[in-house]
Amino acid sequence: TLIFDLDGTAIGQINGLAVANLGDYSFGRPSRVTASVGIGASGLINIERESRLSGRTYDKGLLIIDGYIRNKYAKKHPITLSASIAMEQSYGGIDGDSASVTELLCLLSAVGGIPLRQDIAVTGSINQWGEVQAIGGVNEKVEGFFDVCRETGMTGTQGVCIPHSNVKNLVLRPDVVSAIEEGQFHVWAVKTLDEAAELFTGLPAGAIDDSDTFHGKVADRLELMIDTLKKQPTSSGSHLLWTPGMPTGLPPDPRPPLPGDEGR
Amino acid sequence: TLIFDLDGTAIGQINGLAVANLGDYSFGRPSRVTASVGIGASGLINIERESRLSGRTYDKGLLIIDGYIRNKYAKKHPITLSASIAMEQSYGGIDGDSASVTELLCLLSAVGGIPLRQDIAVTGSINQWGEVQAIGGVNEKVEGFFDVCRETGMTGTQGVCIPHSNVKNLVLRPDVVSAIEEGQFHVWAVKTLDEAAELFTGLPAGAIDDSDTFHGKVADRLELMIDTLKKQPTSSGSHLLWTPGMPTGLPPDPRPPLPGDEGR
Amino acid sequence: TLIFDLDGTAIGQINGLAVANLGDYSFGRPSRVTASVGIGASGLINIERESRLSGRTYDKGLLIIDGYIRNKYAKKHPITLSASIAMEQSYGGIDGDSASVTELLCLLSAVGGIPLRQDIAVTGSINQWGEVQAIGGVNEKVEGFFDVCRETGMTGTQGVCIPHSNVKNLVLRPDVVSAIEEGQFHVWAVKTLDEAAELFTGLPAGAIDDSDTFHGKVADRLELMIDTLKKQPTSSGSHLLWTPGMPTGLPPDPRPPLPGDEGR
Amino acid sequence: TLIFDLDGTAIGQINGLAVANLGDYSFGRPSRVTASVGIGASGLINIERESRLSGRTYDKGLLIIDGYIRNKYAKKHPITLSASIAMEQSYGGIDGDSASVTELLCLLSAVGGIPLRQDIAVTGSINQWGEVQAIGGVNEKVEGFFDVCRETGMTGTQGVCIPHSNVKNLVLRPDVVSAIEEGQFHVWAVKTLDEAAELFTGLPAGAIDDSDTFHGKVADRLELMIDTLKKQPTSSGSHLLWTPGMPTGLPPDPRPPLPGDEGR
Amino acid sequence: TLIFDLDGTAIGQINGLAVANLGDYSFGRPSRVTASVGIGASGLINIERESRLSGRTYDKGLLIIDGYIRNKYAKKHPITLSASIAMEQSYGGIDGDSASVTELLCLLSAVGGIPLRQDIAVTGSINQWGEVQAIGGVNEKVEGFFDVCRETGMTGTQGVCIPHSNVKNLVLRPDVVSAIEEGQFHVWAVKTLDEAAELFTGLPAGAIDDSDTFHGKVADRLELMIDTLKKQPTSSGSHLLWTPGMPTGLPPDPRPPLPGDEGR
Amino acid sequence: TLIFDLDGTAIGQINGLAVANLGDYSFGRPSRVTASVGIGASGLINIERESRLSGRTYDKGLLIIDGYIRNKYAKKHPITLSASIAMEQSYGGIDGDSASVTELLCLLSAVGGIPLRQDIAVTGSINQWGEVQAIGGVNEKVEGFFDVCRETGMTGTQGVCIPHSNVKNLVLRPDVVSAIEEGQFHVWAVKTLDEAAELFTGLPAGAIDDSDTFHGKVADRLELMIDTLKKQPTSSGSHLLWTPGMPTGLPPDPRPPLPGDEGR
Ligand SMILES: [Ca+2]
Ligand SMILES: [Ca+2]
Ligand SMILES: [Ca+2]
Ligand SMILES: [Ca+2]
Ligand SMILES: [Ca+2]
Ligand SMILES: [Ca+2]
Ligand SMILES: [Ca+2]
Ligand SMILES: [Ca+2]
Ligand SMILES: [Ca+2]
Ligand SMILES: [Ca+2]
Ligand SMILES: [Ca+2]
Ligand SMILES: [Ca+2]
Repeated sequence: TLIFDLDGTAIGQINGLAVANLGDYSFGRPSRVTASVGIGASGLINIERESRLSGRTYDKGLLIIDGYIRNKYAKKHPITLSASIAMEQSYGGIDGDSASVTELLCLLSAVGGIPLRQDIAVTGSINQWGEVQAIGGVNEKVEGFFDVCRETGMTGTQGVCIPHSNVKNLVLRPDVVSAIEEGQFHVWAVKTLDEAAELFTGLPAGAIDDSDTFHGKVADRLELMIDTLKKQPTSSGSHLLWTPGMPTGLPPDPRPPLPGDEGR
Repeated sequence: TLIFDLDGTAIGQINGLAVANLGDYSFGRPSRVTASVGIGASGLINIERESRLSGRTYDKGLLIIDGYIRNKYAKKHPITLSASIAMEQSYGGIDGDSASVTELLCLLSAVGGIPLRQDIAVTGSINQWGEVQAIGGVNEKVEGFFDVCRETGMTGTQGVCIPHSNVKNLVLRPDVVSAIEEGQFHVWAVKTLDEAAELFTGLPAGAIDDSDTFHGKVADRLELMIDTLKKQPTSSGSHLLWTPGMPTGLPPDPRPPLPGDEGR
Repeated sequence: TLIFDLDGTAIGQINGLAVANLGDYSFGRPSRVTASVGIGASGLINIERESRLSGRTYDKGLLIIDGYIRNKYAKKHPITLSASIAMEQSYGGIDGDSASVTELLCLLSAVGGIPLRQDIAVTGSINQWGEVQAIGGVNEKVEGFFDVCRETGMTGTQGVCIPHSNVKNLVLRPDVVSAIEEGQFHVWAVKTLDEAAELFTGLPAGAIDDSDTFHGKVADRLELMIDTLKKQPTSSGSHLLWTPGMPTGLPPDPRPPLPGDEGR
Repeated sequence: TLIFDLDGTAIGQINGLAVANLGDYSFGRPSRVTASVGIGASGLINIERESRLSGRTYDKGLLIIDGYIRNKYAKKHPITLSASIAMEQSYGGIDGDSASVTELLCLLSAVGGIPLRQDIAVTGSINQWGEVQAIGGVNEKVEGFFDVCRETGMTGTQGVCIPHSNVKNLVLRPDVVSAIEEGQFHVWAVKTLDEAAELFTGLPAGAIDDSDTFHGKVADRLELMIDTLKKQPTSSGSHLLWTPGMPTGLPPDPRPPLPGDEGR
Repeated sequence: TLIFDLDGTAIGQINGLAVANLGDYSFGRPSRVTASVGIGASGLINIERESRLSGRTYDKGLLIIDGYIRNKYAKKHPITLSASIAMEQSYGGIDGDSASVTELLCLLSAVGGIPLRQDIAVTGSINQWGEVQAIGGVNEKVEGFFDVCRETGMTGTQGVCIPHSNVKNLVLRPDVVSAIEEGQFHVWAVKTLDEAAELFTGLPAGAIDDSDTFHGKVADRLELMIDTLKKQPTSSGSHLLWTPGMPTGLPPDPRPPLPGDEGR
Repeated sequence: TLIFDLDGTAIGQINGLAVANLGDYSFGRPSRVTASVGIGASGLINIERESRLSGRTYDKGLLIIDGYIRNKYAKKHPITLSASIAMEQSYGGIDGDSASVTELLCLLSAVGGIPLRQDIAVTGSINQWGEVQAIGGVNEKVEGFFDVCRETGMTGTQGVCIPHSNVKNLVLRPDVVSAIEEGQFHVWAVKTLDEAAELFTGLPAGAIDDSDTFHGKVADRLELMIDTLKKQPTSSGSHLLWTPGMPTGLPPDPRPPLPGDEGR
């Protein structure tokens, strides 16, 4: 009884793609990522890490996201936000950075208040400049989302967004190939976060000083949030719900990484 | 000699449901959760974690609660509170996020000063948007609360609140089924925190800017608390009774998770 | 050559009750708890924990005390104090929360400057609302304090304060029963911290806004302390003697818990 | 499908050189280092370390970089920056300080907004005064970059920058020697960071008070960044995206160091 | 070639007493404790602990010292100091709290600028009220200091200060007994820190508001130090040489405790 | 290809002496220590410790240095500095406090901008009062520096500075004895840091209020640095490049200590 949203749009919510491993058999399964953003100075809270459910490469992915945001939006103003990113309904530990495009899109949607399409699932690894890098298990991931869509009824608009450098790895099941050929299911390949953002939002990626674009909306909200915080007479350092870094000192997850990411 | 309250209402106190395991035999037992809230900037203190009695999924549950609060109440103002959540009379370690609906209701009751019904016990997992997700061991949990109520005398208003997605798992003992059919015991199924809040408080869930509703009362108190703190001339960062994050660096509980949550 | 005080009154000092285990033979022994309170912002320092001599349940007991104080005294003002609680002359590690009533009484005495009777020893576990919960080893604890009193000469006013829910567990030695029947030794059973406070101080428990009562005196001093700190021009965050949380990252005590608490 | 840039220039991006080990056979492979810099006070974030993917000597290298910056640029003003350094597309753990010249050049490029040549790869260890020290595996590293360049088409301007003290270790493959002799590939040997900076940027190294030089441009931007931060009314301490030091308390990477650095 | 001072007086320096163990044979040896105090807000730095050379009971001893200072001097003003306590020339790890009287005297001497006699060595454990408690190995400790004095030439004023509750344990070597009987060596027994302070300084212990006494001089300097710090325009929180708590997260000393303290 | 400076002077740079162990054979080798100092509030950064390359006694040595500085320079003003100390070109871990005189001289040179002779190498352990204590392996250390000097050509002014209490341990090789007798190599023995400072700088040690002396120059720069920091409008607490204490929570170096220090 996992909860998914496979049509319409939502803010701060996105469908990612993971690979589950059952002995000899592995299959893709979608996973829902959510980002919660508020006024405050808690920083970027990695919920998986804070609850010791993440591996090293997953954590590196979130640090790269942090570097992307610093490079993109903190050139003229500092950034102060209070945000948390969670893999919903995931309890068994997670590793790999193949969800970092997913997480960055989700976070920026929540910051900018920009709706994301729920009928597309995305996988890919990001670097500090927003380039999308290849990931493992691309076929299982595409097929896994296809199966979930078919189960609940295909809409014709559904599909997956994958790294351009993974196109050469695509060897899909005949039924998936047919659906794609008939225009019932879609595979989009992207080279940059900007291309993915345009696909998910319908907005041009744009520039941070153009409010009618994806990056402009995010930059405007970051500016608004820090302005709101500045108006608070007390020191902004204290507007903490959760103390970031709280679970430091805890050992890494001893469980093996998820199959789809292990093979990177 | 566990202490329970099975009638009337109370603020910052609620009956949860756990599953105890004695070799081959497992049975449900209620557990009391309390939340203590004061003026200050200690953040949200997870007492089980701070005393190294919690597992990873339990901690993730509290981080999700933190994300829920950020998303719901921190859109226009930052949030500064000093609160602690404890599983009373629990010493053996706890895991699983099946108490996260319980804890969130309890915390919001303590923040908003809103009385909660003590004749209902609740189980369920929450996500960052307040959706209630399925949990394990639902039958044992319902039967366990039924048994405790019968022991101290049933009032006719008592019952349990479970996730809607667990209704299909219900296969209860004949005596419990009879009591339900006779209207002596009740099972409520909810899809969202809002539905649970309305059940426990009799208030409409409402919106944060309507003071006559559940969310409005919580938002008003959060605003009042930060206003009170702002009037303090000293830096609010120092109004700490307990330093959050103090037990960082301590290893996780080596004990096995509680049975009811393990099976998730 | 342990140091005890078995008559008169003292501020910030109280006699607790522990159980020592020598192979097959276990016996009760009193323990002295002291609380030191000063102007400052170090928070509530758990000396046993900071020196890695405490177990998880002991630490949970102190977090519950913290929750009690937040709930009781921090409704209108934040609380800033600098206090430490120690088990004097204890070197071998401690676990269990059966000293939490003892510690809370001792701390509130030190905060409020309220003398506590030294001729009574107390045991019991507290919850966030100040309810006193059952503990283990009640007979050995009562007998242990009786023996210490007899050794140094009984005064006729001496006795022990135990949780009401432990009365049913009392099966005392004939000589202790005789002394109680002859009014030479006493056993008081309490349900709440308020009852214990009235027994130890002779003051009514009262309300925080009535300065002639136990809680009123504590509240007045907390207010006075924060007012004193506010008058300091430098940031109150720096008035630290010892950095709370300093020993974080240290492993828990590998030694087994004390016998009297293990059985909870 | 690793992403490299082998011509033109880029800011905050540089090609480093590592050695991969496959059983008996070891070979050089380039690695891309990126530095992201923004207004803020997060300090210098070592992404490898924060994700527990670095060894001790790698971390020491970044601390030496920190010492270099303190000594060079913090004589008249304090330094406040928010920067992160990452080894892109590296997941298997990293050790050794043979990338510290690489990282320092990359960081200063990002701080000063100074473009770096992408057709040169660099290796070398730095000390607190900016002297370049010998590293291991110099031949494999040179040959590895040569092979990558040849694969994508040599431009005639490409080459590697190595420590002067490693020149005596050079015993290159005949094809590499021929390319060098024909002016198709280049090996530059440097004794100081200043020499490397001039090679990569075409600017004179210069002095911190001469804005037309490498160090002058870096110093000007550091001054500009702290001035921008000062104009923020809220305490600069809160402009944190990621809390530096967050993953403290985590165990070091158990994996063996990379071969090229092990032999130092 | 250990350095000792066995006559005259010195500020912030004192001779303690330890027991060394060589297989079957154990003997006492003096140890020099020094305390360094400056203007600042680093708190009380336990050098042995910060370098992971201390055991749990040693650390508890320093926390008790912290509690003593809070209780004695922080009733009207907060305390801000920057002080470090070291066992000079000790490398092998230390445990036990038998040096806590020694350390407290040394610290108060350094704070108050009060000279301490160097011809007396002291041993004893302190509680939060300044009562001196029994320690182990008293005979070896007395004899050890006697031997060191005799080696460098006895002055007739030399001797040791021990807990009053250890007098009953004294069974000294004939040569030590003779020297004591002839007035060439001395044993002082004390019940409180005040008695020890009067012995070591020649000042009356006195009250904190009488500047001609031991406690008055300490209180005056604490007040002077916080006044000096207040005049600093920058936040006092930043006047740190060493960050207290820096080595948190490090494991305890695996070495066995020193013999003299083990037997407590 | 280690880098050494064996003539002239340099600021913040000094030659220390270590002992390397190759199976049965041990020999001395010089090591270069550098100190980087800037305006800021990072405190005293122990680079070896922060990269987990130091043992306990090495760390204690740096804490003693911190205590020395507090006692010497922080009597009238607090101290705020940002400094790092590194053993250059050392990767294998380090233990022992025989480099603490070396490090303290180097740090004070960097703080005061005072040139140090590079033709002298120094070894010795310091206490909080600046007394120089005996170290191990003195003969190997003297011979090791002699050999390095001879290799690069002796200048006639070169030599080593050792603790006075180690003079009695000197049994040098005949060729070293000859060079000393012929005035071609020198051994200076010192009892205090002041004597060492005069040897290395040619300045009188002096007093902190006399600007023409070693201590006066250091004190003047410390005052200048804090004055510079005070003029910064933002809180000085944020001028951090590296967060001190960042690697807390990491286990100590499992490698054995260096031979020369082990034997202490
Ligand atoms: Ca939908
Ligand atoms: Ca704008
Ligand atoms: Ca009731
Ligand atoms: Ca409102
Ligand atoms: Ca008495
Ligand atoms: Ca009042
Ligand atoms: Ca290019
Ligand atoms: Ca300038
Ligand atoms: Ca003397
Ligand atoms: Ca006074
Ligand atoms: Ca030179
Ligand atoms: Ca001066």
